[in-house]
Amino acid sequence: MFTVHSETSTSCMTDIAAVREAMNRAAHPALLMVDAISSLGCAEYRQDEWGVDVTIAGSQKGLMVPPGLSFTAISDKALAASRAGGSRRSYWDWEPLVASNKTGFFPYTPAINLLYALNEALDMLAEEGLSTVFARHERYARATRLAVAAWGLDLQCLDPSAYAPGVTAIRTPEGHSADGLRAVILEQFNMSLGNGLGRIEDRVFRIGHMGDLGVLSFTGTLTGVEMGLRAAGIPHKAGGVQAAMNFLASAAA
Amino acid sequence: MFTVHSETSTSCMTDIAAVREAMNRAAHPALLMVDAISSLGCAEYRQDEWGVDVTIAGSQKGLMVPPGLSFTAISDKALAASRAGGSRRSYWDWEPLVASNKTGFFPYTPAINLLYALNEALDMLAEEGLSTVFARHERYARATRLAVAAWGLDLQCLDPSAYAPGVTAIRTPEGHSADGLRAVILEQFNMSLGNGLGRIEDRVFRIGHMGDLGVLSFTGTLTGVEMGLRAAGIPHKAGGVQAAMNFLASAAA
Amino acid sequence: MFTVHSETSTSCMTDIAAVREAMNRAAHPALLMVDAISSLGCAEYRQDEWGVDVTIAGSQKGLMVPPGLSFTAISDKALAASRAGGSRRSYWDWEPLVASNKTGFFPYTPAINLLYALNEALDMLAEEGLSTVFARHERYARATRLAVAAWGLDLQCLDPSAYAPGVTAIRTPEGHSADGLRAVILEQFNMSLGNGLGRIEDRVFRIGHMGDLGVLSFTGTLTGVEMGLRAAGIPHKAGGVQAAMNFLASAAA
Amino acid sequence: MFTVHSETSTSCMTDIAAVREAMNRAAHPALLMVDAISSLGCAEYRQDEWGVDVTIAGSQKGLMVPPGLSFTAISDKALAASRAGGSRRSYWDWEPLVASNKTGFFPYTPAINLLYALNEALDMLAEEGLSTVFARHERYARATRLAVAAWGLDLQCLDPSAYAPGVTAIRTPEGHSADGLRAVILEQFNMSLGNGLGRIEDRVFRIGHMGDLGVLSFTGTLTGVEMGLRAAGIPHKAGGVQAAMNFLASAAA
Repeated sequence: MFTVHSETSTSCMTDIAAVREAMNRAAHPALLMVDAISSLGCAEYRQDEWGVDVTIAGSQKGLMVPPGLSFTAISDKALAASRAGGSRRSYWDWEPLVASNKTGFFPYTPAINLLYALNEALDMLAEEGLSTVFARHERYARATRLAVAAWGLDLQCLDPSAYAPGVTAIRTPEGHSADGLRAVILEQFNMSLGNGLGRIEDRVFRIGHMGDLGVLSFTGTLTGVEMGLRAAGIPHKAGGVQAAMNFLASAAA
Repeated sequence: MFTVHSETSTSCMTDIAAVREAMNRAAHPALLMVDAISSLGCAEYRQDEWGVDVTIAGSQKGLMVPPGLSFTAISDKALAASRAGGSRRSYWDWEPLVASNKTGFFPYTPAINLLYALNEALDMLAEEGLSTVFARHERYARATRLAVAAWGLDLQCLDPSAYAPGVTAIRTPEGHSADGLRAVILEQFNMSLGNGLGRIEDRVFRIGHMGDLGVLSFTGTLTGVEMGLRAAGIPHKAGGVQAAMNFLASAAA
Repeated sequence: MFTVHSETSTSCMTDIAAVREAMNRAAHPALLMVDAISSLGCAEYRQDEWGVDVTIAGSQKGLMVPPGLSFTAISDKALAASRAGGSRRSYWDWEPLVASNKTGFFPYTPAINLLYALNEALDMLAEEGLSTVFARHERYARATRLAVAAWGLDLQCLDPSAYAPGVTAIRTPEGHSADGLRAVILEQFNMSLGNGLGRIEDRVFRIGHMGDLGVLSFTGTLTGVEMGLRAAGIPHKAGGVQAAMNFLASAAA
Repeated sequence: MFTVHSETSTSCMTDIAAVREAMNRAAHPALLMVDAISSLGCAEYRQDEWGVDVTIAGSQKGLMVPPGLSFTAISDKALAASRAGGSRRSYWDWEPLVASNKTGFFPYTPAINLLYALNEALDMLAEEGLSTVFARHERYARATRLAVAAWGLDLQCLDPSAYAPGVTAIRTPEGHSADGLRAVILEQFNMSLGNGLGRIEDRVFRIGHMGDLGVLSFTGTLTGVEMGLRAAGIPHKAGGVQAAMNFLASAAA
């Protein structure tokens, strides 16, 4: 069973514990594999408690490291399955790394510079404290949604219990290209926003608010979106930044 | 005659050409020495055309280099005066550097790293183009003043023809500490603003908008001030950031 | 047919053109795939001229970039084979990257920072000139072999026509641990040398002399080896560094 | 009384305690001011114990920081004299900094980046331990003198008790330009050596062996000098690097 903890393009969270519970109720023997790339470091993640067998994650989102590292967390059950499995492939073979883990060496050339960066990033997370980090992400996410509401735009994620803390996908009004808006914002305000993928291509733009992001860089991001909506002629109401500021100034006080 | 081109603490410009003209009208033989520390790289400066004898400047403002370098531009008249003058002092002796200028060497240990930074900064200024750089400063300064007007606060500089392009000093309402506001903004929004000096100590705070500053970093700065005014309980009206955004989005389009 | 252009652990080059010629003589339809990881940027490499179908290379050797990037060069024949082949696997599927090559985008998250580094590294290679770069590697390799001869040690590579320009593997005398020597050099002189792999584990140590390596960093490396041989009690004659210096000083003059 | 602790150009140390003792014997009231620029961090320095009144030092030598900071240590006696003295000058006025020392602020714009570097450098010195740092400098200095002796060249400093630990000035044979040698070494081996000043201009070249210098960077430096002597046609005997290596390999073992 493959699923995604935080689906970046739609900005919806999956309730991993509920997925496992459903699998258990059905007494299904499948392994549960989760993509936690854009949630790790932004939100609680409980591999053991939730019964996840394999988690994959990346360095370039909540862990605040340049792209180039990926991480795999493996349950004993998944490890046993990999050893017993048929159709074995070198690419999926965890053994060399599992064996090397004992000594801390790598079986292949490691991306050394990124490991130094990761070390520093983990220190930063520990220093701020994970619960503070998660609360910061929730605060930025809520401020973003307040801005979106003030602009009169729609979130892609319709279920409030599934709002992602690290990224928010926003729909442009029918007939208005999200990619056109992104192009205007890049050109005029030097800010690159994420796009929609697959069925929501050109229908959403994404505001990332994860990782090493100070509050004024975050509000600066919102000003870029609001000025971009205006410059691109997207129907909206002013006041999104104001709504976010009102909330953040109260939250800070 | 000593004067300052851009007086940082008040954010007022001095009309250097007019000062020289007045000196000329009075047929006064004094040398004209100008502190251009916070204006060089932010606004036009014409040493020869304006009849300046000595200009001193620094690396850490419009030139966008870390602090540590200062620059002295000397007219032939000033150089002759320094050679003929009485009460000579080693500190004021330009000769070793003037002699070294021919070869490009330094008579003392130079701050090498900062010279590399300066080289890069001058390339950046040349690439953007000085007229574009100056226009950008004017645009940010105007956006700042629109925000101040919307907040219902007063500028320290009362003469519109003397508004500085690189920094804007803003008065807090009577009875409200500017330094207290600065402390709240530093504490809650991690932004350090300049203070008032001398007679306007604790009466003004300064928004610097000079040098290597992207438009969204600038608007982010304004959001920090507006949220800080609210968090610090300084009487003001909301809408300053909105006013700045309205102007900047139009200017960009 | 898989082969390695420069086999790092033994420091032997393979004559790729000769391999292809033998395949052609046998009229064998196999594709020729070459690992050029430790030769690219150190020595001539001619994919088309030599009839190579697939070359893989890495960023962290002659290209002087931190580890983290790999490169694949594919002949039309290999691309056609990959499209027609059975037992297709996602890991071996070049299509998404081939399709993206037209626009310069990446189908997945790219290691952006390393791409900036690569850009700079390619500029450095172009500025020095490939023929100068290759000659520099040959000069260091020859100086290394002169040092090895003076020390009275043996090269792992027995064929002078196969000496690698970027790395030289050296055998410790029978009964003396190469890994022990490497440990002494790391501990006492803070220099980490490469080791032997497989059958020559603990029998050779490697001096890398590739990439962004100035002549005095190179000779400094040799001093570390010579002092290490002495400190570790490996039987050898002094004079290796002297022999290398004699050659390099003449080559420089 | 002005003197220099380590005179860079000649590489001779002054016995500061002996200078003070002589002043005391003569019951002379003069203040003792010492330039410790190229000794601080390389050798013991005891302001209070030696009875120094004013010490000035710089960031760019034993403290391993880029050039741009200077330090002044002032005795109570010197501070009292500065307050009571006639002919006061702004340049010599310590009061603003003395007053600011209590709060840690600077009365003027500080070179912030260099203060971060200094903080790191002091951590490095504390981590290695001052006695280890001083011993390392002595070891490199001795290795350098062994190389010089092997080359058959003369040291500028004739008194063994005055050899500087951080730098060694070496005389070229009569009739051979030291600056010509330095030019060859810069051109062919990309290494810039210090020159002689004043009466020993063009007669000596200096090998600096201070600060953040690993042992193989140091021996690499010596190889550059030995290859340079050869390339420049300076009469000398080979074997300087060998002599240094023999000593260092024994010292390490």
